[in-house]
Amino acid sequence: MGKDAFTVGFDIGGTNLRGAVVDQAGTILSLEQLPTPSSQAGLYTGIKTLVQRFTQQYPIAAVGVAIAGFLDETCRTVRFAPHLSWRNEPVAANLERELALPVVIEHDANSAAWGEYRFGSARDVDNWVLFAIGTGIGGALMTGGKLYRGAFGTAPEFGHLRVLPHGRSCKCGKTGCLETYCSGTALAVTAAEVLSSNQYPDSCLLPLYNQDPAQVTGRAVVKAARHGDAAGKAIIADFANWLGQGLALVADILDPEQIVIGGGLAGEADLYLEQAVARYRQEIVGAGFRPEARVVTAQLGANAGMIGVADLARAAVSDVCLVQGTAVHR
Amino acid sequence: MGKDAFTVGFDIGGTNLRGAVVDQAGTILSLEQLPTPSSQAGLYTGIKTLVQRFTQQYPIAAVGVAIAGFLDETCRTVRFAPHLSWRNEPVAANLERELALPVVIEHDANSAAWGEYRFGSARDVDNWVLFAIGTGIGGALMTGGKLYRGAFGTAPEFGHLRVLPHGRSCKCGKTGCLETYCSGTALAVTAAEVLSSNQYPDSCLLPLYNQDPAQVTGRAVVKAARHGDAAGKAIIADFANWLGQGLALVADILDPEQIVIGGGLAGEADLYLEQAVARYRQEIVGAGFRPEARVVTAQLGANAGMIGVADLARAAVSDVCLVQGTAVHR
Repeated sequence: MGKDAFTVGFDIGGTNLRGAVVDQAGTILSLEQLPTPSSQAGLYTGIKTLVQRFTQQYPIAAVGVAIAGFLDETCRTVRFAPHLSWRNEPVAANLERELALPVVIEHDANSAAWGEYRFGSARDVDNWVLFAIGTGIGGALMTGGKLYRGAFGTAPEFGHLRVLPHGRSCKCGKTGCLETYCSGTALAVTAAEVLSSNQYPDSCLLPLYNQDPAQVTGRAVVKAARHGDAAGKAIIADFANWLGQGLALVADILDPEQIVIGGGLAGEADLYLEQAVARYRQEIVGAGFRPEARVVTAQLGANAGMIGVADLARAAVSDVCLVQGTAVHR
Repeated sequence: MGKDAFTVGFDIGGTNLRGAVVDQAGTILSLEQLPTPSSQAGLYTGIKTLVQRFTQQYPIAAVGVAIAGFLDETCRTVRFAPHLSWRNEPVAANLERELALPVVIEHDANSAAWGEYRFGSARDVDNWVLFAIGTGIGGALMTGGKLYRGAFGTAPEFGHLRVLPHGRSCKCGKTGCLETYCSGTALAVTAAEVLSSNQYPDSCLLPLYNQDPAQVTGRAVVKAARHGDAAGKAIIADFANWLGQGLALVADILDPEQIVIGGGLAGEADLYLEQAVARYRQEIVGAGFRPEARVVTAQLGANAGMIGVADLARAAVSDVCLVQGTAVHR
C-alpha cells in the first residue's frame, strides 16, 4: 500500500450508517451517512454505496467496519449482533466480495478504543479501559498495546453486568443490568420514576412528562440539569452513582491505569463525572491502599470507532509497518 | 541453581502458616506448619524457623511466599494485606535479609493459579480464571501464559464485587460484596437467616443453632446438605445461585476459556457446581450465541499456593530456564 492511500472506517449505529475516509494521522477527510438499513442485504448495499462514493475521490486501500456485536476468534465472522440481524454471519468475506477491497471488521468499542489509543486520550497508555456510554454501554480493554478479547472474542462486556438483582428489565432478557441504570436510555427510565413520584412539582420536565412521557429523553434530562432543574439534577446524580459503581466493578477486576469515558454521553461528563469518580473511589476494594485509575473523557467523540477501525484496516494491509506488531495486536 | 536444588513455598493462612519443600515437578517433599503468628515480627520469625528446619534436610535455593494482599508493581512490597498488619511493607527484602536466600512474594490467588497452570487443572490453558472460594474469594487471571496483574498489581479481585446494593455488611467496609453471599463464611450467615426463619423445623441444624449459632459453620452446613437436610440444601442452593452470578460477572468482563473453582470449598463442588454453572449460563450476556467457559475444579487443593509460589521462586533463580519467559510473566 502506498503511503498516500487512504482507508475507510464505518460505524453502524442504531440510527445512521456512517462512513469516513481517514488518513494515516487519523484525520477524517470525508464523512458520509445514510439511515441505517434495516435488512442484512440493505446493510451490505449501503456500505457499498458509500464506498463507491469515496473511491471516486480518494484512492482507498482497505475498509474497516465497526460492529456492535460479538466477533469470532478469527475476527471475520459476526457471531451475534444484538441490534442487527447478523447471527454467525461471515461479514468480512461477504463485504470483500461486494467491495473488491480488503475488509477488516471489529467490535465497535474495540474500534473506538483503538482510535483513542492511536490518536486520542489513551496515547501511550499501557493498560486502560474504555467505558463508552450512549444508548447502552460499550467496553474495551487494552493491555500492553493490545486489545484484550478474551478466549472467545466477547470480552470485555460492561453493559450487562448485573448490579441489582430483580432490578430493571433489560432488552437482553435479564434484569438489573448496569446499562438499565447508567446509559442515555436509563436517564429516561429514571426520569419517569422520579417525575411520577411527585417529589419535584416545580420541575420543568414535569409538564413535558405529563404531556407525553416519551418526550422526557436522556437529552431532555441533560438539558434540564444544565438549567439547574432539581429533578434533572437528581436523575443525573442517580446515573453518576451507578456509573461509579460500574467503574468500581470494572476496576476491581481489571485494575486499569486509566479509564476513558466515551460514547455519546462523554460530552456531558462535566455534569456527572466528579460524583461518579467519588463513588468509584469509595467502592473499590482496598480503597486508599492502592493507586487509582485516572478517569478521563474520550477525545475523538462519536468518530472514534470510524477512525479506529480505519486505522486497523490500514495496518492490516500496510506494506509499511505503521503500527508495531498491529497484526498481532488484533 | 543446580537441577537438584529445591525451593520452599509458604502459604500464610488465617489459622496456619504452612511451608513446603517442592521439587521441580511440583511434588511436595516435606510440609510443616505453625499457628499463624499474630505480629509482623512473629511472621518473619515463623518463616525463618520453618526454613531452618527445611535447610537441615534439603538444599534450598530460594523461598516463595504466597500472601493474601496487594503487592506493588515490583512484586517486592506488600501494599495492603487486609488480614495481616502489612502496609507498604518491603516483605521480600526483609525476608531475604532474615533468610539469606532469594525470596519471591506473590499474591496467594496468583500463586495458586500458577500452581494449577504448571501442575494442575489449567495446564496448557491459554486464557483462564481461578475463582478460589474459602473463607472469602480469591481470584486470578492468566492470559497467554502470564498472570494478569492490572496496572497496579491489584487485579483481579472478585470477592468484593458488589452484587447487592445495601446488602450484607462486609469486613472490607462495604456492603453487598460477593463473598458475603458466596464463601465459607457466607454459608454460616445464610444458615442463620434460613434457620431463624422457622421454615425448616425438622432441620438437623436447628438444635445446633438454638444451642449456639456459632456452631452452624460452613462445614456444618455442608455436612447437613450431604445428609439430605432440607435447610442445608437450601443454604447451599443460595450459595450456588450467587456463585453463578459471580461467575457471570467475571465471564462477561474477562471471557475466559476455562474457570477453575479452587479454594477450600472446591472439594465440595459436587454439591453446588452444577446449579452454579446453570445459573452462570443464564446470566452471561449473549447466552446461547457465544462459546462458554468450561468450569472445572482445581486439582492441587489447599497446596496449590505453596506449590505455585515455590515454582515461581525456582523460576526466578533458575539458571536453567524451566519456564519460558517466567521472569517476564510475573
